[in-house]
Amino acid sequence: MARLVVMYKAPQEKAAFDKHYFETHLPIAKKIPGLRKYEVSQGPVVTPAGPSTFHLIATLHFDDMGAIQRAFASPEGQAAAADVRGFATGGVEMYIFDNRDV
Amino acid sequence: MARLVVMYKAPQEKAAFDKHYFETHLPIAKKIPGLRKYEVSQGPVVTPAGPSTFHLIATLHFDDMGAIQRAFASPEGQAAAADVRGFATGGVEMYIFDNRDV
Repeated sequence: MARLVVMYKAPQEKAAFDKHYFETHLPIAKKIPGLRKYEVSQGPVVTPAGPSTFHLIATLHFDDMGAIQRAFASPEGQAAAADVRGFATGGVEMYIFDNRDV
Repeated sequence: MARLVVMYKAPQEKAAFDKHYFETHLPIAKKIPGLRKYEVSQGPVVTPAGPSTFHLIATLHFDDMGAIQRAFASPEGQAAAADVRGFATGGVEMYIFDNRDV
């Protein structure tokens, strides 16, 4: 299984970010073709040393790397990416990788 | 379920890093108490725009945030952390968060 990990830095207004994320972004992103599972961090994202600079981490599961490429190219993926550019006021990092159990 | 995501920046020598990771670190880390599932990225970690600065991402699953705290405090967790300091020559970031399906 491949993963798209979306890491949102702390936004300017956390309450507005959360409202937009769960009420607007999630319904858009869940339409992305090939999406098998969607996880979102709940509560603070911390490091072993204390607070982190991230507010929310989303982990999207796909069958393989090709499915993620097709997802980004799809109209639904483009709509989700366009939405992210609007509300991710603190910045966002995205990482894509194939994943295996060890 | 809670997650410990360990993100290794590109090391000085990738082959030596991989050899140490899979032959030495993994057997140490898999002894951490409370570890439910252990995933490792396979192949390159990329971004939507191209290559990333990360070489490997490990995702460790625990029952909850308390289990991760106890894991870090355990002798096995401390051994794994000490080992990381030795081989993560490019640097490492760790993020801990509770996770839920949406």
